[in-house]
Amino acid sequence: MLKRLFILCTAAGLAAGAGVAAGAAFPGNGGDRAPRETGVISTSSSPNAVLHDVPVAAFRLGNGFWKQRLERNQRRAIPALLRLLETHGVVDNFRRLSGRLQAPRRGPRFTDSDLFKWIEGAAFALQSVPDDSLRNAVETVISDVLAAQGEDGYLNTYHGPDDRFSNFRENHELYCLGHLIQAAIAWLRATGDNRLLAGARRYSDYVISLFGPGKRANFSGHPEIEMALVELYRTTGAIVYLDYAEYLLNGVELEKVEEKISANDLAYSFSGLPFRSRTRLEGHAVRAMYACCGAADLILERGAPQTRLALDRLWDEMVSSKVYVTGGVGSRYRGEAFGEPYELPNERAYTETCAAIGSMMWNWRLLQLTGEARYADALERTLYNGFLSGVSLSGELYFYRNPLASPEGALRQPWYDCTCCPPNIQRTLASLPGYFFGTSRKGVWIHLYDSGLLDWRLEDGTAVNLEMSTDYPWDGEVRVEVNPETETAFCLSLRIPGWTTAAVLELNGVALESVPEPGSYYELDRVWRAGDWLTLTFDMPVRLIYANPRLRNNAAAVAVSRGPLIYCQEGVDHPDCSIFDLALAPGRGQFTLSRDKALDHAVVLDTGAFTFRPPLSERPLYSPSEFAPPRDRVPARLIPYFAWANRGLSPMQVWIAKVTD
Amino acid sequence: MLKRLFILCTAAGLAAGAGVAAGAAFPGNGGDRAPRETGVISTSSSPNAVLHDVPVAAFRLGNGFWKQRLERNQRRAIPALLRLLETHGVVDNFRRLSGRLQAPRRGPRFTDSDLFKWIEGAAFALQSVPDDSLRNAVETVISDVLAAQGEDGYLNTYHGPDDRFSNFRENHELYCLGHLIQAAIAWLRATGDNRLLAGARRYSDYVISLFGPGKRANFSGHPEIEMALVELYRTTGAIVYLDYAEYLLNGVELEKVEEKISANDLAYSFSGLPFRSRTRLEGHAVRAMYACCGAADLILERGAPQTRLALDRLWDEMVSSKVYVTGGVGSRYRGEAFGEPYELPNERAYTETCAAIGSMMWNWRLLQLTGEARYADALERTLYNGFLSGVSLSGELYFYRNPLASPEGALRQPWYDCTCCPPNIQRTLASLPGYFFGTSRKGVWIHLYDSGLLDWRLEDGTAVNLEMSTDYPWDGEVRVEVNPETETAFCLSLRIPGWTTAAVLELNGVALESVPEPGSYYELDRVWRAGDWLTLTFDMPVRLIYANPRLRNNAAAVAVSRGPLIYCQEGVDHPDCSIFDLALAPGRGQFTLSRDKALDHAVVLDTGAFTFRPPLSERPLYSPSEFAPPRDRVPARLIPYFAWANRGLSPMQVWIAKVTD
Repeated sequence: MLKRLFILCTAAGLAAGAGVAAGAAFPGNGGDRAPRETGVISTSSSPNAVLHDVPVAAFRLGNGFWKQRLERNQRRAIPALLRLLETHGVVDNFRRLSGRLQAPRRGPRFTDSDLFKWIEGAAFALQSVPDDSLRNAVETVISDVLAAQGEDGYLNTYHGPDDRFSNFRENHELYCLGHLIQAAIAWLRATGDNRLLAGARRYSDYVISLFGPGKRANFSGHPEIEMALVELYRTTGAIVYLDYAEYLLNGVELEKVEEKISANDLAYSFSGLPFRSRTRLEGHAVRAMYACCGAADLILERGAPQTRLALDRLWDEMVSSKVYVTGGVGSRYRGEAFGEPYELPNERAYTETCAAIGSMMWNWRLLQLTGEARYADALERTLYNGFLSGVSLSGELYFYRNPLASPEGALRQPWYDCTCCPPNIQRTLASLPGYFFGTSRKGVWIHLYDSGLLDWRLEDGTAVNLEMSTDYPWDGEVRVEVNPETETAFCLSLRIPGWTTAAVLELNGVALESVPEPGSYYELDRVWRAGDWLTLTFDMPVRLIYANPRLRNNAAAVAVSRGPLIYCQEGVDHPDCSIFDLALAPGRGQFTLSRDKALDHAVVLDTGAFTFRPPLSERPLYSPSEFAPPRDRVPARLIPYFAWANRGLSPMQVWIAKVTD
Repeated sequence: MLKRLFILCTAAGLAAGAGVAAGAAFPGNGGDRAPRETGVISTSSSPNAVLHDVPVAAFRLGNGFWKQRLERNQRRAIPALLRLLETHGVVDNFRRLSGRLQAPRRGPRFTDSDLFKWIEGAAFALQSVPDDSLRNAVETVISDVLAAQGEDGYLNTYHGPDDRFSNFRENHELYCLGHLIQAAIAWLRATGDNRLLAGARRYSDYVISLFGPGKRANFSGHPEIEMALVELYRTTGAIVYLDYAEYLLNGVELEKVEEKISANDLAYSFSGLPFRSRTRLEGHAVRAMYACCGAADLILERGAPQTRLALDRLWDEMVSSKVYVTGGVGSRYRGEAFGEPYELPNERAYTETCAAIGSMMWNWRLLQLTGEARYADALERTLYNGFLSGVSLSGELYFYRNPLASPEGALRQPWYDCTCCPPNIQRTLASLPGYFFGTSRKGVWIHLYDSGLLDWRLEDGTAVNLEMSTDYPWDGEVRVEVNPETETAFCLSLRIPGWTTAAVLELNGVALESVPEPGSYYELDRVWRAGDWLTLTFDMPVRLIYANPRLRNNAAAVAVSRGPLIYCQEGVDHPDCSIFDLALAPGRGQFTLSRDKALDHAVVLDTGAFTFRPPLSERPLYSPSEFAPPRDRVPARLIPYFAWANRGLSPMQVWIAKVTD
């Protein structure tokens, strides 16, 4: 009873106080932090977080790998997507509901979430870079959204009073609500305006008034709501949201749920069962990843040791048997789903961009929880490969799925009928500055590397600037200048990527004697003075990657990597033979590096390879005698995987046959 | 107009004369042959057939590989399936329609076809072996079927007057009609009773009165009707059926079809487009195979050179890039479909048993058309592997799909919700004696080998007995005794299987000098006398099979074969390590042969292999250093692929890793 009163109070409080409240502190929002002073997620008050968030706005990118990408995202891609959302009636769906427009509802049942993700992306962008035109556009959209909210708080353009909450398995209502919450929080953090948050809370409170312990039973159907509710708790301090997230993750009374749910539904939706009972990643990959994010968020707030055990088991299973070398996940078209261990087909990889994002968000949460470099390694691998391949170099064309081989090539699209990925990419890119750093009681952590200036503070309040200069990921040298406001002792934890063969660290021009270990954080605990500088040099050779022989389709192949990047071949670079007839000879190939203007100055690799002549396509499918290895020497080129499909339709492969002789 | 009159006449004629007419000759039915004197399909009057059918009943199996399997099929499996069809309401659906029973309709929309296939299987069995109990059961079913036929001839239990013929893409009406026709023809041939045939004609005539050139446009949606209509033409002599089959294959006026058809529908259903325009196998594998059967039948009757070109192209594509080493086809769960060239995943092979049957039927038709051994090789490969794996050793449990690897193992089922495969297996097994022989003007052809007695005649009418004695496929020696009724000259064409490394032929105890060529028919053209005998000895070593390196998932693996059989490994034989950690060393392995009682006395192979220790499952998924090859020697056993999953749940694989060093 106490809890319900609390909901009503806080909802009423927000509704009453709705309006721009820039700089106002919210309970739970990092204690004394203003909304804008918040990272991708707010872990600064999470009792089980080793690491705490650094605001998205605190890191201003310099001229490096990401800056132009984020600018294109904000200037071109986000406005372009709003136009497409308008064209496809996604905003009109809200106007229709509020009576501002007479029109039939359009699009799949989950389109509301696409708009909410778009708002979130725009809001993250605005946290870093003011932009009146974009801000006005978002405000118009928010006005349209809020005008569509029902008296009772319900806010979904697909379902009417008769069918709401009747089919959690398919209806995506809580999924859409999750994205509404996340959009509202990002908007609050960008602007201090809590009107959308008030709407999101009213809808959340309405859901919680109907469902949960002692009320009607439900399950999430498409996880996403769980992590959103935890963030809503962090933002508002209202424990009911955390409680309901915990209920969805661990307390669903399946036997009381009113709709029919099969075992297959429970696997596919990765919800409904107690999360702690999960032993394998299965079903819809995005749902599974989002559920894991929610579980990690719950652990950050409540410990939840059984859930933690399950989550660790799932992560181990993923990295040991269910993730692509690009960091992508999802092996089956059918159900957009995880497969069995080692079921990682290249051409038929489903690897939805949203699933890669889900994996990044999950790894981010595990990194906050533990401070362990393996999660940052996994995040970085996905960021530069399985995620970044989802958007064109131009910034406005997208992939829904990111296969590791494509016999015909593929064309990115500005829009998909199910357009979940484009706004998801946009919000991830816009929030990216928030992924570079963290703080702990000990000091400051650097997770990712790019040129830019961090302007933030230690957890004791001492202001610190960090200036990074690097051509990462094209080059392995990073210079960091450390500028505390006063001379002060703290630990600078530097991530030494797992992919490097060796790292060298110089402090103020002097090499340190202890050798940084790849795949760990190197702790530099000392008294820092303004102007201290250090140079990190990560050995970044071209490395071949071998697959576990259980991954049978890659057992006779190698992947090529350099730094965090996985490389691929495209047919357009190999006019004289099929790339599928090419083979590399491990140990015999030298790689020449150069920059390719046509690929945004990416580092490309040239080497010698062998080809089958006559082509394999002219030979039998099966033979009682072994196929002779390829003998004819030909040049081969490799480009970063993320840069494929930017030069027209062209075959592509990541895993390249290897010569065995 | 003339044509339509002809339909009405023949339909009326049959309806009037319906009843048992054993031994009566039908126009087109092999000229002067009685219905019972007909093979699997009746090509004896087909103008473009090199080979002509030998009746199913003419070959009486002796004690060999197939006899007990066909007995189990007839005695156990066919009666058991009728009980299940009754239990699941499939027969009741007809009783409901005729008013004999009040009950809701049950099962998917295509269940009628399951019953028709069951009738066909029973009828084929009755062609070989009289069985009053089975005959009575079929007659009861036929009575229930015919009682459900509408005044206008329509006969389908799923669709009412309002929705009939409204959705060829999904409704399976013509597919069901196709199976009705085939059942009716098999029943006629078994018993001389043409009542079911009269019903099938009435329904066919009704369809043709509505659809076709100058009438409403349609397409088949699920091919099957095409080959059935050609056989109906062969059986009745009524050219309208052949004309309509040709229309469906080549003349559909897509723009006039009343329902909406997408490009995807045309690919998936393998119908609607002119068959001659097809350049690749795609879409639903069973649909594609059945369409190819129909096209082959059309070519047998009409030449159809453009269709022939297309059909040859598709066959070449199949054998060069889209067929499993077991003869199975179908690479994708999604759409139960063909994939791209070289897309042949092992665990996720879809390889529906019905598709294997479709491929056998297609190859059978191409063999009739050409007399080329490659089609018999493909048929035999599928028969002993991808088809036979579809039924348990006990004969009553089935697989819907036949993967080439199974991490957990799989259990055969007596029934599937979509139970198309079980009756399809039954009809194929029951008709199998019809696949062993053929005749041409030159003489007699032997396609398959097993013990038994052929009692048939040359095309000039001279009676000939052939008695085969062999332990094929366990042993490569076949003895054939030739007994013409009078001394007579003819050519005996003996298939020399493509899988043999060498064949030796002795005539009356004397080795022939010319060496039979594997993968061809050896022609022994001479004057034959009663008591002449010959011995064929096919070298049948254990052979490793290698996959084209483009088939990447098998590039580091080998399959093991002996004779027409593909072998596999099961976990139950390897208690000390995972079969997926085993590797064979080509060139170093000796195989020991023995008979295994638990597998119906199949020949099993024992050899030495290597295993990874520690197991691969305990190692990283990706590594910058190459995985060392397995070193620990362990024993390995291989069993025929068709015999897998008869000893409980156990992992299985066909393609076994090979040691590369």
